[in-house]
Amino acid sequence: MGIRHIALFRWADGVTEDQVAGVAAALSVLPAAVPQLQAYAFGPDVGISEGAYDFGVVADVADPEGFAGYRDHPEHQKALGVILPLLADRAAIQFRLPDTPGEP
Amino acid sequence: MGIRHIALFRWADGVTEDQVAGVAAALSVLPAAVPQLQAYAFGPDVGISEGAYDFGVVADVADPEGFAGYRDHPEHQKALGVILPLLADRAAIQFRLPDTPGEP
Repeated sequence: MGIRHIALFRWADGVTEDQVAGVAAALSVLPAAVPQLQAYAFGPDVGISEGAYDFGVVADVADPEGFAGYRDHPEHQKALGVILPLLADRAAIQFRLPDTPGEP
Repeated sequence: MGIRHIALFRWADGVTEDQVAGVAAALSVLPAAVPQLQAYAFGPDVGISEGAYDFGVVADVADPEGFAGYRDHPEHQKALGVILPLLADRAAIQFRLPDTPGEP
């Protein structure tokens, strides 16, 4: 059973492109630093739909213990230290990944 | 350049497990029906973090045209007809996938 963790961020007014680049930089070290990560993807919204959030992170881990390991990892906590002051809103979930991607 | 579309749903009060099962059933036909889908994963929150949304959908497509093809596909529109009446809140984004998953 895999777990997909998703976090979507809406930035506060006044957040700069440099600050968003700092978020991406902080997240970019995590695939190599966090052994529990099986896949990791993140990035800014590309502006092709109305009302979208500003930034998204998707972390695939093996199980709830893998999610806790990612969540509590010092490098992830460091990234949260960069992200949290910039947030106006955050939407998150963890759902079970099918054993065969694409299958129900 | 791949695009990852994410939609997170928070259900309205009173939504039943059967209704959520109906959502999953409507979404489960999409991988076979929508040629633009390169990967598709969805499911209910597994309850391992505070304040999580209730249901998540992740659709990977090749490009913005692929996203439009998915968004406008009759089977997707049919699924939206099942989902929208159940929603209290929805958070969505589309971000660019790295050419090599896991790489910054």
